[in-house]
Amino acid sequence: MVGEESPRFVGRSMPRREDHRLLTGRGQFVADLVLPGMLHAVFIRSQHAHGRIRAIDAGAAAAMPGVVRVLTGEELLRLAPPVAGGQLSLPSKWRTQVQHAIHNPQQPMLAVGKVRHVGEAVAVVVAESRDQALDAAELVAVDIEPLAAVVEAEAALAPESAVLHEEFATNLIGELAIEKGTVAAALAAAPHSLRRRFYTHRYAGLPIECRGVIAAHDPRTDSVTIWSATQVVHNVRRAAASFLRLPEARVRCVALDVGGGFGTKGHIYPEDLLVPFLARLVGRPVRWIEERQEHLLCSCHSRDQLHEVEVGFDSEGHVLAFRDTFLVDCGAWNPIGVAIAYNTAVHLLGPYRIANFAATARIVATNKVPNAPYRGAGRPEAAFAMERTMDLIAQTLGLEPTEVRRRNMIHPQEMPCAMGLPYRDGEPIVYDSGDFPGGMDKALQAIGGLAAFRQRQQEARRHGRCLGLGVASYVEGTGVGPFESALVRIESNGSITVSSGACSQGQGMETIFAQVVADLWSVDPQDIVIALGDTSQIAIGFGTIASRSTVNLSAAIHYASERLRAKVFAIAGNMMECAPADLELRRGKVGVVGVPGMEVTLAAVAQAARPGWDHRRPAGVDAGLEEIFYWEPPTVTWANATHLALVEVDMASGSIAIDRYVVAHDCGVVINPMLVDGQVVGGTVQGLGGALFEEFIYDRQGQLLTGSLMDYAMPRAGDMPSVELLHQESPSPLNPLGVKGVGEGGAIAPPAAVANAICDALAPFKVEINATPMKPEHILKAVAKSRHPDRSRT
Amino acid sequence: MVGEESPRFVGRSMPRREDHRLLTGRGQFVADLVLPGMLHAVFIRSQHAHGRIRAIDAGAAAAMPGVVRVLTGEELLRLAPPVAGGQLSLPSKWRTQVQHAIHNPQQPMLAVGKVRHVGEAVAVVVAESRDQALDAAELVAVDIEPLAAVVEAEAALAPESAVLHEEFATNLIGELAIEKGTVAAALAAAPHSLRRRFYTHRYAGLPIECRGVIAAHDPRTDSVTIWSATQVVHNVRRAAASFLRLPEARVRCVALDVGGGFGTKGHIYPEDLLVPFLARLVGRPVRWIEERQEHLLCSCHSRDQLHEVEVGFDSEGHVLAFRDTFLVDCGAWNPIGVAIAYNTAVHLLGPYRIANFAATARIVATNKVPNAPYRGAGRPEAAFAMERTMDLIAQTLGLEPTEVRRRNMIHPQEMPCAMGLPYRDGEPIVYDSGDFPGGMDKALQAIGGLAAFRQRQQEARRHGRCLGLGVASYVEGTGVGPFESALVRIESNGSITVSSGACSQGQGMETIFAQVVADLWSVDPQDIVIALGDTSQIAIGFGTIASRSTVNLSAAIHYASERLRAKVFAIAGNMMECAPADLELRRGKVGVVGVPGMEVTLAAVAQAARPGWDHRRPAGVDAGLEEIFYWEPPTVTWANATHLALVEVDMASGSIAIDRYVVAHDCGVVINPMLVDGQVVGGTVQGLGGALFEEFIYDRQGQLLTGSLMDYAMPRAGDMPSVELLHQESPSPLNPLGVKGVGEGGAIAPPAAVANAICDALAPFKVEINATPMKPEHILKAVAKSRHPDRSRT
Repeated sequence: MVGEESPRFVGRSMPRREDHRLLTGRGQFVADLVLPGMLHAVFIRSQHAHGRIRAIDAGAAAAMPGVVRVLTGEELLRLAPPVAGGQLSLPSKWRTQVQHAIHNPQQPMLAVGKVRHVGEAVAVVVAESRDQALDAAELVAVDIEPLAAVVEAEAALAPESAVLHEEFATNLIGELAIEKGTVAAALAAAPHSLRRRFYTHRYAGLPIECRGVIAAHDPRTDSVTIWSATQVVHNVRRAAASFLRLPEARVRCVALDVGGGFGTKGHIYPEDLLVPFLARLVGRPVRWIEERQEHLLCSCHSRDQLHEVEVGFDSEGHVLAFRDTFLVDCGAWNPIGVAIAYNTAVHLLGPYRIANFAATARIVATNKVPNAPYRGAGRPEAAFAMERTMDLIAQTLGLEPTEVRRRNMIHPQEMPCAMGLPYRDGEPIVYDSGDFPGGMDKALQAIGGLAAFRQRQQEARRHGRCLGLGVASYVEGTGVGPFESALVRIESNGSITVSSGACSQGQGMETIFAQVVADLWSVDPQDIVIALGDTSQIAIGFGTIASRSTVNLSAAIHYASERLRAKVFAIAGNMMECAPADLELRRGKVGVVGVPGMEVTLAAVAQAARPGWDHRRPAGVDAGLEEIFYWEPPTVTWANATHLALVEVDMASGSIAIDRYVVAHDCGVVINPMLVDGQVVGGTVQGLGGALFEEFIYDRQGQLLTGSLMDYAMPRAGDMPSVELLHQESPSPLNPLGVKGVGEGGAIAPPAAVANAICDALAPFKVEINATPMKPEHILKAVAKSRHPDRSRT
Repeated sequence: MVGEESPRFVGRSMPRREDHRLLTGRGQFVADLVLPGMLHAVFIRSQHAHGRIRAIDAGAAAAMPGVVRVLTGEELLRLAPPVAGGQLSLPSKWRTQVQHAIHNPQQPMLAVGKVRHVGEAVAVVVAESRDQALDAAELVAVDIEPLAAVVEAEAALAPESAVLHEEFATNLIGELAIEKGTVAAALAAAPHSLRRRFYTHRYAGLPIECRGVIAAHDPRTDSVTIWSATQVVHNVRRAAASFLRLPEARVRCVALDVGGGFGTKGHIYPEDLLVPFLARLVGRPVRWIEERQEHLLCSCHSRDQLHEVEVGFDSEGHVLAFRDTFLVDCGAWNPIGVAIAYNTAVHLLGPYRIANFAATARIVATNKVPNAPYRGAGRPEAAFAMERTMDLIAQTLGLEPTEVRRRNMIHPQEMPCAMGLPYRDGEPIVYDSGDFPGGMDKALQAIGGLAAFRQRQQEARRHGRCLGLGVASYVEGTGVGPFESALVRIESNGSITVSSGACSQGQGMETIFAQVVADLWSVDPQDIVIALGDTSQIAIGFGTIASRSTVNLSAAIHYASERLRAKVFAIAGNMMECAPADLELRRGKVGVVGVPGMEVTLAAVAQAARPGWDHRRPAGVDAGLEEIFYWEPPTVTWANATHLALVEVDMASGSIAIDRYVVAHDCGVVINPMLVDGQVVGGTVQGLGGALFEEFIYDRQGQLLTGSLMDYAMPRAGDMPSVELLHQESPSPLNPLGVKGVGEGGAIAPPAAVANAICDALAPFKVEINATPMKPEHILKAVAKSRHPDRSRT
């Protein structure tokens, strides 16, 4: 449909069109927004992890200068009783077709009756200035009767544990189980077996921009506009409309430039609804910008899973049966339900053919910050369990870990490969494409081959140096449904506008979707407007989470464009008196195939399509050049990668140096290699940050000990290796461009790869690292434990 | 399609939903808008009617405190050369299929080279405060070489006249002529003939809110938002996008509450484009709110036509031939081209059957404020010429004026009646429905019949009192194309949102369209959002001018709803496992006909229609419940009315008292009688204001002598009679609701009705009033002239 001479933009490393504004200081983040008469909200937050609210006295605060309103949870409950169905509910109902049970406690906007984690909001002060609000907030007297804090998931399940949500009489608030084959029998019959516990600790996405919400109410139309640093403007809009009892048309949610999301901003938070509620209540715009300490204390954390794995295998290392029973410590609330646990369960299989498989998850409430998806969203925990297991099998049998993997891996000729389990969209899991062993080999070749490394390793050992090679492979279901929307419109000047529910947090979406549109329409990317993150642009949308936007929005754009192109050709054919079938797109024009110069511009077609006296549409063709398409993907497409870490461990200090870090990555067709590189490197760095540095540590009273960036050890550039990228492209057959998601992949494998590398480096000492993070003190403890196996840590 | 038990809202006098906000002070007009960092623009305007700009020195102004920018016409021309096609062009090309010629001078944003009317902007100052801008504006030294002012259209055509637009070498900048039959021959052969000149003076819509524009540029996306007190947000958006060289998607135009339009705000003004240009240039929001004096000096005036009529008739008063040659004094620029002249020409026929008819218009440039449509838009001038002629025929033949009318009127059994001329949409004029003599009779009955009045009149004369009865009938083509858009969407809570290009300036559109939607969908009007006046709601729209919105938007809503209902029924049928044909709408639900209780709510259908895993749409039905329809009316529908004025003239003072004023009005099906009454009364009051009080008077130098509300005599409530309304309803067969436009009608007939009444009152003195306004001094002069016929005024 596009003429031959048109340049192709998909596949080119085009510079990001977003960067001009960001680099020249013209980006606008929610904190940059200033509205006339804007008030400032400050939350009063619980200092107790668990307790009963005896009383809140806001009298002194309300009398402070500049204070416009103080609101407590009890008062809010009277003003706005919760809406049935829950305002802080799942982004969409997951269609899990597996046995599961869930008690989803409904998170209040402000705590009522009890507090359940340090930092939980109990009241809010709205004042003329932020300083006035802060001063007044200090005078809100919150009388809390402390209760025993529940800080560890395992302990939380003990009969003697305090219970967070008394209505359920247990801290076990969710369970799910999936199984295929005959696991118990296969485990019993296996020639070899292993059983281990693996722990992935609590860390989280720390976007450079914290969260923030500004809302303004327009009494003229009783409508609200919400500016939120969110990944899901349409979900925020729906929830706010429901909470405020307004039609969705009266609520607009806008995400301006957003400084990183990583899943942390991927669902609805109380502030997304409470700030617009306050703005409407007091009749003036209200601003709340999260402080870094608030972010660490209140925005969702992630990971925090304890796995107990049993694996049965034969003497060649073939896995015969695998069972994983794991706990998800979901903190005080569970905003995403079973999604993370389900992600973990179905991603355990990784790139391997395992006939007998079972995973059982238990979701446990504790007095910690709620747990929600963060880049990887349950998959790093799965990769850690499975990839450590692969290495342990290799160690048991005296095989190379890569060889054990190769023997279990699904081969490209087996694609598409049905895995015998349902995905969380309810569809059977079928790996659609990919060359898993090929990727691993590519990574090994990049370091000169395995044998050469082993030689260097032996050489080093002779000099007392501990070098190690760690490999971790994974697969990732990306581009999950339920849908994404695209509106494609040709404006009267021939420019093309695309809007959607997808929201950018710095991924470069304006650039890559302009590339997609430019190819589909044979126009210059400069003539394309990509308008995302604003519900006023399109009524229905989903949002950007779960490595889904490139996959789903590109498909939605494709199909909307296909319909629109039929209309454009019908009108252009009418204008040029020729059959639509004879037409092609060429550089902003519609031309007759094989007849150079016989053409009309898209602008002329748009004018001809306009309603009115001068239109040149054929009979039966509606006016306007605008199509909305909702792409409802049948199921996910599977990306994959192998990460390879070469480390050196300093036995004296426990410190770990990463000499090389290689990623052989396959996300299908690559739209913009430079941006894919950025995604993979960024994800890998976050994965390494989690593996080596970042950690939320709670004490026994549920106080967060790493509640500032002085304590929560964010890695800096100097801490990170240079990440070497190798691309494979296995196009997905499931969408028109053949693309797969790439947002999260980088973060999945690093903890497993690094742990395997450390274990490989310390193999002579039979050191096992089965928990993250892997800080020097952990290494030293593990070394000590390997020498005194009775002292255990997890 | 709607169940029987549903209440009907169309036809009810429902209170205006807009009024709550307006009456509680929550309306928001453009002057209420405050943006952070907002600057203030003040224009420097010509004090000369005609002159050559020698130099503009802005140096001192630019150095004043707070001044951010001073811009002259020359500088603007360099920064933004005019776009081909003209940024201040017609709202849409009129498809006149008649002989016409037009030189449309392209109006600059700021004068370049010459000034052509007092008040024309030559430069603009942008400063931190309005006071600073005003102070600086006084220091802009504008050196103008005065040229002879051209103030009267007739004189402007004289060879010795100065020429405004030298490129055309004449002040005659437009001509058109329409004709049917053989006018010259029929005039020559007619037993009787008359020739008269009729003059309708210059007056205009004076909305309570002057114009105003605020614009903000978002450097993040290089987009602008324009808040303008305009009737045509989509036209402003298109023109601004063109002028700023931006895709339309990067320009949003919003009309908030607008305090009256009346056509004066119905086209694009320089400020609509210049203010956003300035905002983008200086990088801060810019505000310009028109002062009343500016409004009188710069916003378009109207009327100002001089007609020369020849009429031939037989002894029974049948009109055999009618020729009208008229001048339109269009002032310095001609923003609307031939539209007004064309309106006048084709409305001359009125409700009468006239076989031989010709109208020739000449559009003449003068050094006055540009002329553009104002409520009636060329029709009051036509009605004045024709309705005065009818009375003169009656006078000549000694017949009752109503009898002459009745003998010439088209009868209801002749409907639809082809008139043998094309409308300005290019379609043949066919009066679609109406009972013209019936309406006149109804008005006469309301005053107790003609004979009774004549008796009272005789009685009064015996006491030296001059009572008069004046009648004026007219027809009005309403609901002209080219199109209007409607987007109808059912939200997830079941509420229905409608958006469109139509813009309200106080007509009550939110109320009446909610009534239309409520009936179409069988829902409560409270569950309907009518979102108008915002280009972000729908990409393509036209706007509110020319008595068109009720007609065209109701039709667009109807057809969009029809399509959407098919989709709703398909999905509801799928949900209830029944055939869509068995379904009906009932009170927010879709139910099975004849099966009470078997139903699903619209909210449930909207949920089922959403894209995603849980949808319940049948195969082949797209997601979402949203339809856009562009109604492209085949041609206009014809409203009509007869106005009847009973006056008493005080011969001593020339003052006129209106004893009764009766309007028998037919605008087809009435959606909200209370609001139609408001429209008709309001229009009548404006018509009477023009007939008796309001007048723009220029001196020979082109200085406006009535440039404030002290001089321009706006009527007050106490000056106005109580208007008695009689409704007829002749449904239009041209649109689904049978409605006709009602916005302008009231203003068309009063000058003619009052003039006829005065002439009737003064019949014993043979006084002829053939010019407006009819102030006491004019009456006294006319009386004097009837006594000394050699002293003539027009």
